[in-house]
Amino acid sequence: MPEQITTPMHTSFHHAAVRVLFLTLFLGAMQPGAAAAQDGALYAGQTDMERALDERSSPDNLRRWMQDLTREVHHAGSPGSRKNAEYVAERFREWGYDVDIEVFHVLLPTPKERIVELVHPEHVRLRLEEPSLADDASSQRRDGMLPPYNAYSADGDVEAELVYVNQGLPADYEELRRRGISVEGKIVIARYGGSWRGIKPKVAAENGAIATIMYSDPRDDGYFQGDVYPEGPWRMGMGVQRGSVSDMPTFPGDPLTPFVGATEDAERLEIDEAPTIMKIPVLPISYDEALPLLAALEGPVAPARFRGALPITYHLGPGPARVRMKLAFNWDIVPAYNVIARLEGSEFPDEWVMRGNHRDAWAFGANDPISGAVAMMEEARILGELAREGHRPRRTIVFASWDAEEPGLLGSTEWVEYHADELSRKLVAYINTDGTGRGYLGMGGSHTLEAMINDVARDVADPRAGGASLLDRIRARNAAQQGLEHGGAAGPTADIPISPLGSGSDYTPFLQHLGISVLNLGFGGEGGGGSYHSAYDTFEHYTRFIDPDFVYSATLPKVTGRATLRLAMADVLPFSFSPLVDRIETYLGEIETLADDMRRETARRNALIESGAYDLSADPLDPLLAPEPQDEVPYFPFSHVRNALTVLRAAAEAADRAVQHAAQGPTGAGGDSAALGRINQAMYTVERAMTDMEGLPRRPWFRHQIYAPGFYTGYGVKTLPGVREAIEERKWQEAHEEIEDLSVTLRRMAEALHAVAAAAPSGGE
Amino acid sequence: MPEQITTPMHTSFHHAAVRVLFLTLFLGAMQPGAAAAQDGALYAGQTDMERALDERSSPDNLRRWMQDLTREVHHAGSPGSRKNAEYVAERFREWGYDVDIEVFHVLLPTPKERIVELVHPEHVRLRLEEPSLADDASSQRRDGMLPPYNAYSADGDVEAELVYVNQGLPADYEELRRRGISVEGKIVIARYGGSWRGIKPKVAAENGAIATIMYSDPRDDGYFQGDVYPEGPWRMGMGVQRGSVSDMPTFPGDPLTPFVGATEDAERLEIDEAPTIMKIPVLPISYDEALPLLAALEGPVAPARFRGALPITYHLGPGPARVRMKLAFNWDIVPAYNVIARLEGSEFPDEWVMRGNHRDAWAFGANDPISGAVAMMEEARILGELAREGHRPRRTIVFASWDAEEPGLLGSTEWVEYHADELSRKLVAYINTDGTGRGYLGMGGSHTLEAMINDVARDVADPRAGGASLLDRIRARNAAQQGLEHGGAAGPTADIPISPLGSGSDYTPFLQHLGISVLNLGFGGEGGGGSYHSAYDTFEHYTRFIDPDFVYSATLPKVTGRATLRLAMADVLPFSFSPLVDRIETYLGEIETLADDMRRETARRNALIESGAYDLSADPLDPLLAPEPQDEVPYFPFSHVRNALTVLRAAAEAADRAVQHAAQGPTGAGGDSAALGRINQAMYTVERAMTDMEGLPRRPWFRHQIYAPGFYTGYGVKTLPGVREAIEERKWQEAHEEIEDLSVTLRRMAEALHAVAAAAPSGGE
Repeated sequence: MPEQITTPMHTSFHHAAVRVLFLTLFLGAMQPGAAAAQDGALYAGQTDMERALDERSSPDNLRRWMQDLTREVHHAGSPGSRKNAEYVAERFREWGYDVDIEVFHVLLPTPKERIVELVHPEHVRLRLEEPSLADDASSQRRDGMLPPYNAYSADGDVEAELVYVNQGLPADYEELRRRGISVEGKIVIARYGGSWRGIKPKVAAENGAIATIMYSDPRDDGYFQGDVYPEGPWRMGMGVQRGSVSDMPTFPGDPLTPFVGATEDAERLEIDEAPTIMKIPVLPISYDEALPLLAALEGPVAPARFRGALPITYHLGPGPARVRMKLAFNWDIVPAYNVIARLEGSEFPDEWVMRGNHRDAWAFGANDPISGAVAMMEEARILGELAREGHRPRRTIVFASWDAEEPGLLGSTEWVEYHADELSRKLVAYINTDGTGRGYLGMGGSHTLEAMINDVARDVADPRAGGASLLDRIRARNAAQQGLEHGGAAGPTADIPISPLGSGSDYTPFLQHLGISVLNLGFGGEGGGGSYHSAYDTFEHYTRFIDPDFVYSATLPKVTGRATLRLAMADVLPFSFSPLVDRIETYLGEIETLADDMRRETARRNALIESGAYDLSADPLDPLLAPEPQDEVPYFPFSHVRNALTVLRAAAEAADRAVQHAAQGPTGAGGDSAALGRINQAMYTVERAMTDMEGLPRRPWFRHQIYAPGFYTGYGVKTLPGVREAIEERKWQEAHEEIEDLSVTLRRMAEALHAVAAAAPSGGE
Repeated sequence: MPEQITTPMHTSFHHAAVRVLFLTLFLGAMQPGAAAAQDGALYAGQTDMERALDERSSPDNLRRWMQDLTREVHHAGSPGSRKNAEYVAERFREWGYDVDIEVFHVLLPTPKERIVELVHPEHVRLRLEEPSLADDASSQRRDGMLPPYNAYSADGDVEAELVYVNQGLPADYEELRRRGISVEGKIVIARYGGSWRGIKPKVAAENGAIATIMYSDPRDDGYFQGDVYPEGPWRMGMGVQRGSVSDMPTFPGDPLTPFVGATEDAERLEIDEAPTIMKIPVLPISYDEALPLLAALEGPVAPARFRGALPITYHLGPGPARVRMKLAFNWDIVPAYNVIARLEGSEFPDEWVMRGNHRDAWAFGANDPISGAVAMMEEARILGELAREGHRPRRTIVFASWDAEEPGLLGSTEWVEYHADELSRKLVAYINTDGTGRGYLGMGGSHTLEAMINDVARDVADPRAGGASLLDRIRARNAAQQGLEHGGAAGPTADIPISPLGSGSDYTPFLQHLGISVLNLGFGGEGGGGSYHSAYDTFEHYTRFIDPDFVYSATLPKVTGRATLRLAMADVLPFSFSPLVDRIETYLGEIETLADDMRRETARRNALIESGAYDLSADPLDPLLAPEPQDEVPYFPFSHVRNALTVLRAAAEAADRAVQHAAQGPTGAGGDSAALGRINQAMYTVERAMTDMEGLPRRPWFRHQIYAPGFYTGYGVKTLPGVREAIEERKWQEAHEEIEDLSVTLRRMAEALHAVAAAAPSGGE
């Protein structure tokens, strides 16, 4: 970027619209330069260190550690968990890290009794176990293995007619209502998919159901997708998906200690007042065992989109199938062992860059999470070596091996809550990984790190694609799926938007609760698989089907190591803010379209109801009730957000220009640690300005105003969640309020960006 | 319509575009009046006759005749066929008709030997039979029943590896090629659906396969859709769909006597030179028997859209499954009995209105075709009564009970070919029915009869919808599915476009070969079912699941009877031509869009191939080849057709106005038989102008230039087929030629419409 264009343009924002137009025209031509300019911020030894990552990352190490860490089951609270924590801690110590095992004491129910039986029209008692397989030696080791269950289900002993509710989402209950079916007092059976699993019993309970059975339909997660284990990677007939059903969209972590770390002496809620513990019993089963239950249903044939791949006609019920379900749990407080390893920064020890991956698994967890955990270990090993060889990190690097992620992000959440103040001040960014597979690099995270991670993906070679970069392959896939305008030749240099994050792994407390910029990285998209949260997520399964020679998992340290190092070594942190504004504008556009579509659809539907078309077109011999009329959708003052966004865009562009100038200019801050510290702290705390201490409506723990897990999707992200969910849930007054709150947030972000520009030497006057 | 607006506007067509604009503005306001005006053409006793249809149509008659006609199997050439022909002829005689049984001698192969066996990796010999059911007494009567087979399959005895080809359409083979799979020398197995069945072996043979097995996948036609017989209406595991595989898109009817009636002494082709006989052996099987074949396939997992609802992972092969298939047929010439019943017209005996429904079935055929056949009989009975009561038809009414429809429209086609000259001169319109169910009235046919049949549907009450008309229900369904703008309150009076016709029933030779205006009518869309062409299409199945109390089938005579009578009694025939022009314009727009989409998609795909995106995005461990580059799509001179269409629109509007004036004006032709004859003959021969004696490329038998069955869909219609198929099949030179031919056709139609206007008294000067 030519220096003369950094002349002051940031003193007045009154004619914002004109300025945006000008800047858009002006900067549009400079975009390629912008990415290159960031290279000016790289540490002098960066290239050597990155070459070391490429040369030293060893599939053999990953393989050996995976074997060691999957030898026995190691869920939170198990002997295996402690053993693995010590194994990992010992490795980190060998590699030169300061290591602590920080222990929290968390509620983790485990099954005492599990009974599910069809009691009518015939009696079938389900086995509720996953058999050992001759072809998989790991699956034969059963010592201490938790049977299939859903953590934080309620205890209960109930019997009722069964109703099939498809994926158990609100729209599914609407279909049932149109067929005259209520689940009040019934047991529902739902297939996995369409939402995070915890949403299904939550919505079932909201609709009056007294228990929920969940199963993996072979349409989604079984033979319809591909050959089943052990012939292929997919879930076999008796495979079950375990998992938590705590109400994580309300808050994750220990259900008894929201907002505070679950230390031994923390104040705890009573179990029966803990809001995130499910209010009805819920249990996951296999598709082989779901079959007799579903086959015993009568009543209307399920709508086409409800039907799975079992060889039956799917009926809705209720009944005549009656089911009894009895569940009892040990409601134990167990220790969760977070292994925290530090490499102190040589120049900026109070600026931290953090990496994390959980270590606990529902059983052996070769894929989830050990594949990612061993990739992180390899990164840490190489970084430790480099430090000993003289490439000491300038900022402090912290590695975390989390425990108790599976039951609900407990290890990370309690640690973040406990260290919240220090993290808010010191943590530059958190880079998360979890189970990793093969195929394409998945890039999720804060849009302020989008340009940086695109650069990284541009610099790392795909291990199987003949020299193409990871970014090339993503681009090729996007092009093949969506057209060249989304990748390939038409846009060979443009960055690829990264995915905004909802929840589902340990970045959540960092991002959603504290407003720390995060990345979430891992490979996937090829090979498929259905070992998720089952007894068959084993070393055997991983090495036969997922990443047989560890070439993709051994590529992950090259990616995450680069990201860690670029954050830890740079003079000026590699944040950039204009992409964030672009994405927010996209999200706002989506919501405007959503409101328009809902308005049109509501009017259409109401007019149709009014016209009698539903009643007249229904089959007289197979009735279908008309839907209920709905409130018309009002018009919303999106202009308020648009105006705030205009201010934000100007501030972001000014900040980006000032920072680039600081990073590369001869009059920049290079070399002046104090000045760099001011710029950098201003930069990495911009994400804090995206949070609101009030949190989101009805869930104050979730403070980020740009990204949140959906209240009815669970893991799936909702961007600009306050506004988006108010509209989706038809809370018109709340939508108006959230629009004002969002405008305030965007203006607060603009202020934070002004501070960045002000801290940069040439941007301050 | 006010009389003064019929002042001459038809003398000059030189400024056509200006005139069209004017007429559009001018006539737009008059549309509702136009429909009403046609009522002026109704015969004075019309209302009484239509009331008689409503009052006398008796479900009990339909039930009794269906029982009688489904007592034994009655495929063409069987003793049952002759017995039923005589039964029907006798009824018509009782009702006062002149009846002939016209016999043609047609080739109809029947199975001598059928063997399908899996020979590797294990040996499984298929049963190839449909078992009797305790719950269905009809299904226990097996005397003379043809086993499941495909008529006009080749004889053969082959053994080869098996390949699964999804629906066996050209796009499916493209998917196979991308996975490196050729069917050269293989046996293919295809599921029914996506095209008429005869397309599958044709395309398989084009791709080098040596035999084809077809089966009904439960996804499309079995338990995925609903409960299977006898619990529900859907196809059960051992049910098989029989049917013809002669190459009907080339020509229907007797394969040995194209273009001429198959009289005893007709000149015949040799069997092995008959172009429509399939060149490879082909046999249909059930899904229970397809299961072991498909389960024995390995090779790549089938793409998602290939997968059905069997409880397996669908693989493509080839092999390791090897199949042997041996088929041998009796290549007999059999008699086909068409029952032809006439009620001579009192005023215009040489203007004929014809009704037809076939009578032959693959087994009992309660639904297909007897439900429609008995509805036609009830119509004929009432019309006979009315004639005896003094309401003698003014035009000659001819009823036809066709034989040998199932093997390929043989009865009707041979009859039409034999009587071609007389029909071309005399036949006003042909109204077809076939099997009928319950739900919505399906209205297909020539757009020149669109306004008339809309009026009929407006005047007949739905038997279950509390006084709503048949049209109201169609409109309600369209509104509920597509929005109010397609029906309901927003357009309560506008006509609903009727479906253009391809092939699949006996209207084909009338429409496609001779250019006679046709309608095809029947009820469907509710209740579902899977008895089609199986041994379970029985009285029991029909009365349990399809139209239990015959209320819809007994409504059909009210519809067809009205249509027949309005055509037989009117002073001025109820044709209108502007709707035809509207539809042609829509079809042309579709083709323009098709060409644009193909051009864009081809460019996109070629650019993607060129960019390497396909190769780079493919899974290295599960390769997917890039598609082959294709010729770029040129721009076509659609303006030539547009200009011809402008001329046609002006002519159609002038003709409609002149005819309306003639029908209602005091100076009109009412009462002057000769003048009426001239107008009416000019009107009903407009459809002849849509034919070209050269026929369509590579299929001269198909002469209609507006409608044809698709060469690669079989039954599915292709409108403006010459142009559309040339573009779809990427024959650019041919597309250019067909565009010129279509322009000529449209101008020839305009001339025919000028003749209509000229024949109408106020339109001639």
